[in-house]
Amino acid sequence: MQPTDVCAIGIDLGATKTDVGLVESGGHIRRRLRRLTLVKGGPTVIKADIVAAVNELLDPHASTPVGVGVGLAGQVDPKEGNVLFAPNLDWRDVPFQRDLSQALGLPVVITNDVRAITWGEWFHGAGQGCNDLICLFVGTGIGGGVVSGGKVLSGSTNAAGEIGHLVIDWNGPSCTCGNRGCLEALAGGWAIARHAQEAVARDPSAGSTLLEMVGGKQESITAETVARAARTGDPLAKQLIDRVAEALIAGSVSLIHAFNPSRLILGGGVIEGVPELVHRVAEGVFQRAFVASTQGLEILPSKLKENAGIVGAAMLAIHTFGKKERHHE
Amino acid sequence: MQPTDVCAIGIDLGATKTDVGLVESGGHIRRRLRRLTLVKGGPTVIKADIVAAVNELLDPHASTPVGVGVGLAGQVDPKEGNVLFAPNLDWRDVPFQRDLSQALGLPVVITNDVRAITWGEWFHGAGQGCNDLICLFVGTGIGGGVVSGGKVLSGSTNAAGEIGHLVIDWNGPSCTCGNRGCLEALAGGWAIARHAQEAVARDPSAGSTLLEMVGGKQESITAETVARAARTGDPLAKQLIDRVAEALIAGSVSLIHAFNPSRLILGGGVIEGVPELVHRVAEGVFQRAFVASTQGLEILPSKLKENAGIVGAAMLAIHTFGKKERHHE
Repeated sequence: MQPTDVCAIGIDLGATKTDVGLVESGGHIRRRLRRLTLVKGGPTVIKADIVAAVNELLDPHASTPVGVGVGLAGQVDPKEGNVLFAPNLDWRDVPFQRDLSQALGLPVVITNDVRAITWGEWFHGAGQGCNDLICLFVGTGIGGGVVSGGKVLSGSTNAAGEIGHLVIDWNGPSCTCGNRGCLEALAGGWAIARHAQEAVARDPSAGSTLLEMVGGKQESITAETVARAARTGDPLAKQLIDRVAEALIAGSVSLIHAFNPSRLILGGGVIEGVPELVHRVAEGVFQRAFVASTQGLEILPSKLKENAGIVGAAMLAIHTFGKKERHHE
Repeated sequence: MQPTDVCAIGIDLGATKTDVGLVESGGHIRRRLRRLTLVKGGPTVIKADIVAAVNELLDPHASTPVGVGVGLAGQVDPKEGNVLFAPNLDWRDVPFQRDLSQALGLPVVITNDVRAITWGEWFHGAGQGCNDLICLFVGTGIGGGVVSGGKVLSGSTNAAGEIGHLVIDWNGPSCTCGNRGCLEALAGGWAIARHAQEAVARDPSAGSTLLEMVGGKQESITAETVARAARTGDPLAKQLIDRVAEALIAGSVSLIHAFNPSRLILGGGVIEGVPELVHRVAEGVFQRAFVASTQGLEILPSKLKENAGIVGAAMLAIHTFGKKERHHE
């Protein structure tokens, strides 16, 4: 346990906005700021914006944060904290950990965005007090983080948890990754939009509600349109959501058989748009997975929602740097 | 590291035979015995047979083993070592760890058979020197063990690694577990036999080679028959094996995306019957999985083969009891 005054900076660096928070080890966000992410400026401009935000957050009269945690959508080299590849930011081989640390004069740790969320849910969200959990985040894409035996799994090259790319339908639709039938290709936001657009093209009369919602522009149908139409009771939208539920059940059964968690936490835009999915996935999983694998299992919605990223990144920083700092005190 | 004279008893308790070995920490099997497993006698008879075998193995002039490891096909309560359910042995709630330990006067640890094999391959087989590995065993059924970050994953109720029941074809054939499209229902030995029998029933002329091999008795076609026929170049058998390869690729891609191991070790009767599957799975995985997830990945056949169970069970015993024993010295 950390003393209550230990705090860290948590940063959720997205392609459109960057959230920066000063977070206490108990999970309380003392102060927070939001900045637009100036992707076109590249790492240098983004770094300068973050430094300005952190300096604005810091209270010269309070204790210095033990460090900074950053979550971003990308592949990170765990040793040096280099961002190997972050397509949404258009970064390749950016030594962001080193650069940001030098600019701030604080230790920095960088992780994948969904793994940061997992730290947040684990320490202060739906995963609290639990040693074995999976966070399954269903947004435009699908990603996740896994805690097993009280450790966040990272894998041999820091790529563990690519659970949007479990194959659940080996003859199924093609995925953006080049493979077929990935969970993401059936239940990710982009796939829901694609399937909806295809269904409307096949049968415009069945798709009339969806089309109406987007002013007749078929290509403007998104997962959010489908979620809204399903809430009004539109049969095609409900059918599309049924398929998403089935895919999430199949993927969750696979995850539970592989990892045997005591909690499965569902979050992300698609889940927030169709909250009943949590209940439906739970029902399906308990019907289909091994009894031995589901003993004591709880399937819950994410609790921290839009705060998960900054809280989680800060918890990772406290976990990484907190103890060392305390030795210096 | 253990001193070289540390040894343990490793027991591979199967439904037809029980192998008992005296194994050194370096992996060398000093002596070994094989007994028929008298399933009908129940736990008491099996225990007595094991005690007799262990006493026969022990050398009164050498150092006492630090303990006994047992691997068996079943579900084990990790705290008490009770065998909750072992269908092949017809056991339910058998306190075998306690009973065997009392009978032998040695500490006993019990685990699932495939997890024992994983310990063996990890310490002294194809997984040596590696912190992140998956053993995928394709026999009549499919099971596995996972080492992540230098720990064998057990999950919240000791049921982690049920990787035969990853769903890879959500609309696929029914599995013995009640679900559909499990990896095992497409690539396990029983499924290969079933698909072969169905194919022969649909088209007896295409199945003539297979039928000939079993004296015309369609119901006698097994996975082994299919493997043999494929080796002779029989087109139907080759087609059946192609499907097994595709299923194993889909399952392996899922596993690699979830766990990001640096080694995937393939073993079990189906792999031994069709050794080319290792190469084919590797080829498919490197084509279809993320580059970030396959950096440094090796896909290898199991090395210890029929010794993996006793060596692994002994390593688990040394891992569990070795240090404690050394403190008493």
